[in-house]
Amino acid sequence: MTSALALNCTLKPGDAPSSTDKILREVAAQLAQHDVMTEIVRVVDLAVHPGVDTDMGGGDEWPGLRAKILASDILVFGTPTWVGHMSSVAQRVIERLDAELSETDEEGRPILVGKVAVVAVVGNEDGAHKITADLFQSLNDVGFTIPAQGATYWNGEAMQGGDYNDLDETPEPVAKTNATVAAHAVHLARLFEVSDYPA
Amino acid sequence: MTSALALNCTLKPGDAPSSTDKILREVAAQLAQHDVMTEIVRVVDLAVHPGVDTDMGGGDEWPGLRAKILASDILVFGTPTWVGHMSSVAQRVIERLDAELSETDEEGRPILVGKVAVVAVVGNEDGAHKITADLFQSLNDVGFTIPAQGATYWNGEAMQGGDYNDLDETPEPVAKTNATVAAHAVHLARLFEVSDYPA
Amino acid sequence: MTSALALNCTLKPGDAPSSTDKILREVAAQLAQHDVMTEIVRVVDLAVHPGVDTDMGGGDEWPGLRAKILASDILVFGTPTWVGHMSSVAQRVIERLDAELSETDEEGRPILVGKVAVVAVVGNEDGAHKITADLFQSLNDVGFTIPAQGATYWNGEAMQGGDYNDLDETPEPVAKTNATVAAHAVHLARLFEVSDYPA
Amino acid sequence: MTSALALNCTLKPGDAPSSTDKILREVAAQLAQHDVMTEIVRVVDLAVHPGVDTDMGGGDEWPGLRAKILASDILVFGTPTWVGHMSSVAQRVIERLDAELSETDEEGRPILVGKVAVVAVVGNEDGAHKITADLFQSLNDVGFTIPAQGATYWNGEAMQGGDYNDLDETPEPVAKTNATVAAHAVHLARLFEVSDYPA
Repeated sequence: MTSALALNCTLKPGDAPSSTDKILREVAAQLAQHDVMTEIVRVVDLAVHPGVDTDMGGGDEWPGLRAKILASDILVFGTPTWVGHMSSVAQRVIERLDAELSETDEEGRPILVGKVAVVAVVGNEDGAHKITADLFQSLNDVGFTIPAQGATYWNGEAMQGGDYNDLDETPEPVAKTNATVAAHAVHLARLFEVSDYPA
Repeated sequence: MTSALALNCTLKPGDAPSSTDKILREVAAQLAQHDVMTEIVRVVDLAVHPGVDTDMGGGDEWPGLRAKILASDILVFGTPTWVGHMSSVAQRVIERLDAELSETDEEGRPILVGKVAVVAVVGNEDGAHKITADLFQSLNDVGFTIPAQGATYWNGEAMQGGDYNDLDETPEPVAKTNATVAAHAVHLARLFEVSDYPA
Repeated sequence: MTSALALNCTLKPGDAPSSTDKILREVAAQLAQHDVMTEIVRVVDLAVHPGVDTDMGGGDEWPGLRAKILASDILVFGTPTWVGHMSSVAQRVIERLDAELSETDEEGRPILVGKVAVVAVVGNEDGAHKITADLFQSLNDVGFTIPAQGATYWNGEAMQGGDYNDLDETPEPVAKTNATVAAHAVHLARLFEVSDYPA
Repeated sequence: MTSALALNCTLKPGDAPSSTDKILREVAAQLAQHDVMTEIVRVVDLAVHPGVDTDMGGGDEWPGLRAKILASDILVFGTPTWVGHMSSVAQRVIERLDAELSETDEEGRPILVGKVAVVAVVGNEDGAHKITADLFQSLNDVGFTIPAQGATYWNGEAMQGGDYNDLDETPEPVAKTNATVAAHAVHLARLFEVSDYPA
């Protein structure tokens, strides 16, 4: 059964309204159309410690999150935009995933090879393409495959300060992109179930 | 007399309408408030050859453009956004400026040190902060100083395809930013007229 | 028969020595191990005009290059590093590929969806991860899929000025990465021959 | 008396060896040549909470760090390179500085305008130019001025895994860059003591 994990890298804890959560729920709804269930995790609610080992100890909650990533076929990486960059919470996740480069499966492949990653980026203005670039490069580096047109995003007009949560309805091109991202991710994940990369 | 040169790195030749031209004219008008005259050059109309020497020969028109840059106190670097990046014309200029690292004045300073650079970026959507980052890093590397809040920009809502030239009027926060960028650039350029960096 | 096209986006025309050419030949040799033939094209030798249409006219040689891209299953995008960025020649190719977003096949898919892209970046120093990011984002945006660990690169120690062409032999981790990039690209391209993305 | 604050954004707490600390001490030694004293702070040792307000409460230690930044004329922003990006600790600082855009002095200027920022980046390999770009853009956005050639950095050959702390001595071009960065930062900071940006 193909499964997805969505990471919400908002800076806002608990159930504070999150635009990133909104777009992740929209992508999850599209994945559900393909019979893929998605768990959404708000990373800032976990104590993900600084460091680049698999377990930093002292109450580090990364190992639990890592187990969820390893158990999923598709990673939906969601982040808000701060000063034009992915959030510090998102970069923390990237740093922790860096340890996976040293982890290999029984056939010698890095443990994340064979998994699919897509991204979802929101912000008041400007930044989604750059964040998508940084995420694709780092997620691909540690082993994820990026399906065709594997990013969805929204931001408002420059210097105007709107918020994805404030929109009355999802703009049609964003909705269409959400659907494409989901369809492409599922197609690729199911190909890998049948035929993984060579060892 | 403090002077400015504005580079329009649009892909469109001749007098085709250019959103980058629009924002550069706005910044130039602000510079004029401080008695700084600005020449605007549309780079794509010149044969700026690929390479990283001061003169690539064979009809290379970079040397003439280079002379204008060296004769100015303030560089206003304007570029459109293509696929989230500065234009190929803009990157060509950066490559040619790279040669200036080897050129020094009579006191041993790289020849561009003591000049001020600001940037102006427009696009349909998303990209200005990333392009600003790439421009600040490369212009600073070859010697330009970047004044506080040295960037102005505009782009529209994600996936909607608007154009700066299509706006009925300049949005107020953009107009205010244009004014700040100009005032800061002039302040810094005039400080350097009195007191240049040490050799 | 799975085929590859490698673009060398060096600034140096003709048969001037090119480090980018060296790494592309290495990747091509690895692709050949999987029975994939690679044509290498030095883009700066073609008159690829500025613009974002499929054919800019007036002697524009993009249409011929475009036909080669459309005829290949795998794109190996090679670029040198200039001032920390992909070359202006590389960005020119990205701009021209942007037109493909409007081109669809008979089933309504963007015409590049179903093709695989990998990248190869060289430089004296510093820049490969950033360029990889910018390339993955833009190539993925227009339709390419990025296989797991789809980038190879080399650059030397900071501020030292070495060149990939100057190395006596290919460093072992680079050689290993070249092999992985090729194997992953071929695996993915062959999956798409059997099962393309849904319309 | 001109003063500097250096932020070490390493992921390693306490007195664990830090390459970022090494390069910051080198820059501080150069600043001392100009009679500028530098305090170095290891940010990861403080509880800098996620968020974009001046004080997030609940034990947030940002307000104390913020006071140090506001009391200094020069900010030396030091970060290691992780997966090609600035550290999550560095991005956290950028997010917190974003609140300063709303803070103005008695003449209506953003409170950081008139301060100078330079950056120092180290890593095993590849990334300094991109991180410099992201830092210049965000530090400039909130009000810092970037002096000519305002970045120093070191990283090793691609895929080889060296560390700045492992070097027997500082490479001569890095030492020279450290000296230039310090001299330029001090020159600019002292100009602003005499003549700040207009209100």
